[in-house]
Amino acid sequence: MKVLILGIDGYLGWPLALHLIERGHQVSGLDCYIRRERVDRTGCNSLTPIADRLSRTHTLRIKQPSFVMSHDYVDNCEEFLRSVQPDAIVHLAEQPSAAYSMIGVEEAVETQTDNIIGTLRILWYMKRVCPEAHLIKLGTMGEYGTPNCDIPEGEIPFDCISGHKLPSKEYIECSMGGLIFPRRAGSWYHLTKVHDSYNIEFACRNWGFRSTDIMQGPVFGVTTDDIKDDSELTRFDYDECFGTIINRFCAQAIVNHPLTVYGVGNQTRGYLPLKDSIFCMTLAIENPPKAGEYRVFNQFERTYSANELAEIVKFAGAELNIDVKIAHYENPRKEAETHYYNPYRNKLVELGYKPTTDIFPEVKLLLGDILPFRDRVLIDKLIPQYRWDTSHRKSKTV
Amino acid sequence: MKVLILGIDGYLGWPLALHLIERGHQVSGLDCYIRRERVDRTGCNSLTPIADRLSRTHTLRIKQPSFVMSHDYVDNCEEFLRSVQPDAIVHLAEQPSAAYSMIGVEEAVETQTDNIIGTLRILWYMKRVCPEAHLIKLGTMGEYGTPNCDIPEGEIPFDCISGHKLPSKEYIECSMGGLIFPRRAGSWYHLTKVHDSYNIEFACRNWGFRSTDIMQGPVFGVTTDDIKDDSELTRFDYDECFGTIINRFCAQAIVNHPLTVYGVGNQTRGYLPLKDSIFCMTLAIENPPKAGEYRVFNQFERTYSANELAEIVKFAGAELNIDVKIAHYENPRKEAETHYYNPYRNKLVELGYKPTTDIFPEVKLLLGDILPFRDRVLIDKLIPQYRWDTSHRKSKTV
Repeated sequence: MKVLILGIDGYLGWPLALHLIERGHQVSGLDCYIRRERVDRTGCNSLTPIADRLSRTHTLRIKQPSFVMSHDYVDNCEEFLRSVQPDAIVHLAEQPSAAYSMIGVEEAVETQTDNIIGTLRILWYMKRVCPEAHLIKLGTMGEYGTPNCDIPEGEIPFDCISGHKLPSKEYIECSMGGLIFPRRAGSWYHLTKVHDSYNIEFACRNWGFRSTDIMQGPVFGVTTDDIKDDSELTRFDYDECFGTIINRFCAQAIVNHPLTVYGVGNQTRGYLPLKDSIFCMTLAIENPPKAGEYRVFNQFERTYSANELAEIVKFAGAELNIDVKIAHYENPRKEAETHYYNPYRNKLVELGYKPTTDIFPEVKLLLGDILPFRDRVLIDKLIPQYRWDTSHRKSKTV
Repeated sequence: MKVLILGIDGYLGWPLALHLIERGHQVSGLDCYIRRERVDRTGCNSLTPIADRLSRTHTLRIKQPSFVMSHDYVDNCEEFLRSVQPDAIVHLAEQPSAAYSMIGVEEAVETQTDNIIGTLRILWYMKRVCPEAHLIKLGTMGEYGTPNCDIPEGEIPFDCISGHKLPSKEYIECSMGGLIFPRRAGSWYHLTKVHDSYNIEFACRNWGFRSTDIMQGPVFGVTTDDIKDDSELTRFDYDECFGTIINRFCAQAIVNHPLTVYGVGNQTRGYLPLKDSIFCMTLAIENPPKAGEYRVFNQFERTYSANELAEIVKFAGAELNIDVKIAHYENPRKEAETHYYNPYRNKLVELGYKPTTDIFPEVKLLLGDILPFRDRVLIDKLIPQYRWDTSHRKSKTV
């Protein structure tokens, strides 16, 4: 299968490329390196130094060396699509940080412009070049927020509304999907994913596109089976903007900084190791939906509260003789700190996803992977400084 | 009350300004004239010549002549906000045409950028300058599409979902509103209104803004009580992009062109005369929500099918001795042509909205208003040429 990865230089893009190549797919990619620029701009770094990946592509058994890094993304994307003629497009080329989008008006505008308009352009280019291709798009579980009710996979189940006239099962089946389950996103970034979902659903309904929209939980870890001998083939962020919570906790652990639990710490989300994310995306790619179908997957291993994650990191640290402290900080975000949370996650399992059932060894592995890089941790990036009400002051412990 | 109208030069903006001034409010406005440019660009015109409105502002009893037309909208908007310090901001400054947004990639990008990012900037500027102000935002009934079920006013009613764990009444009340009722928009333009709704709801939830998001049906007519002696004080579009269906039909009627009903013609929407739109927006302005409240109004008089509207125009024409023909054309849009449609419309009535209960005399009035301008009708703009699958060919009769 010819797979084009947009945003191939990212945390998910590169390991996904290696895995797909390993499975015999023909992979090409596009990236403008803006993720690296943004991390630089906020004064952060990747804990693991990132290799010159291009120089290592010869090891990747890419049949056609079609890997392209473009700084002229918008101008080149349609032309690149035309030259590649992909069967599947994995779209990871978005500004991925919620905290970054909350810094100020220009960061919010940058995030919404790059993500929404970037994706809109891709839809139009696909229409002109490869309308049959399967678009795999990374959304986020954060699109749903914490609505205090069960969270289905993308749509309102046809049997669940009563007391009002409802979409019938027949209607939903003939109209290619039910109504989009209402979203309740918590940042300008998360909202871009909501907007993308609506735009992509429309492209499927109006133009007959096929798409998988992945509501993914926060990913953690640094290696997969394909890159376990070379951690410099991926990147690892641990700051408040680009680092996800488990990665942040692990970076804090290895420099003996208290884990920064935001607020009460009962915030619950669905998490998954990097290798599960790659596994799931590969399943989506290799099992495309039919033409006109807009398909939503909720993608995570299982749910944990922030407090549970802190405990896991603490115990994993203990096994490596790291004494991990946990502290509660003023929550920079406006969010429910105690809430009901029950997202469904059935569709990927039906396709063959076997979740990592115990993340404890994964966290221990991660701590071991990053320990050699402990001198690279920027200590002043460990405490959140961007309040989501956008006052700029560091969170204190509570 | 100090009311700032963004997009004051438009079809709704100018009559609203006159009406608010008449009611004693202090009105200011901002516009960059891009609506006029876009109509020019598509080769269309306003049927009624538009007066140099600025030269007539002396008749408007504006206490402080704060009317500003800016071509540097983005650069000036925050500064303007700061000088005006409005109690209410009516945001009409968006690209308002669905057909325009479907022409091609650049029109789609222009529409989504101007509308979504424009509104996002306004939210940030409000945050910095006047977070207590009431934002009145024009959405569209088209956000909902035709979901084949009842359409509540913005939110899923708390009592309507069963068989799954649901948001409770208590949760909804404490969380400042329920879940946004799922949208099912039918064009890139309509989608911008969906995205705006989600962005604004977030600003209310996260920053404590107060906002009224108006899901308005298509408006028709050219005069209101405030401008009935001077039709050149408003604009009147009748082309496929900027003209709404009743206005299109009336322009076709006065030049003896068959009314262009798209497809079967059972497409049903909620319509309202221009004066009702002004009435409703004034009610929203004068009855602001409380801080933190995101409030949705469905705004229309009542629902009609395209066929019913054509019949009304035909009979109104007959009373003016105009022989009106009706024809069915290939539908340029992808939409359900026969469907269930039952939107609720209670909140405005509770505030005092008295709908025009019979649109027949309104349509007759409209035909009389525009008859003197029949020589200005551009005949080749009467048949839709932009297919929403974006093949460019004129629709034929069916």
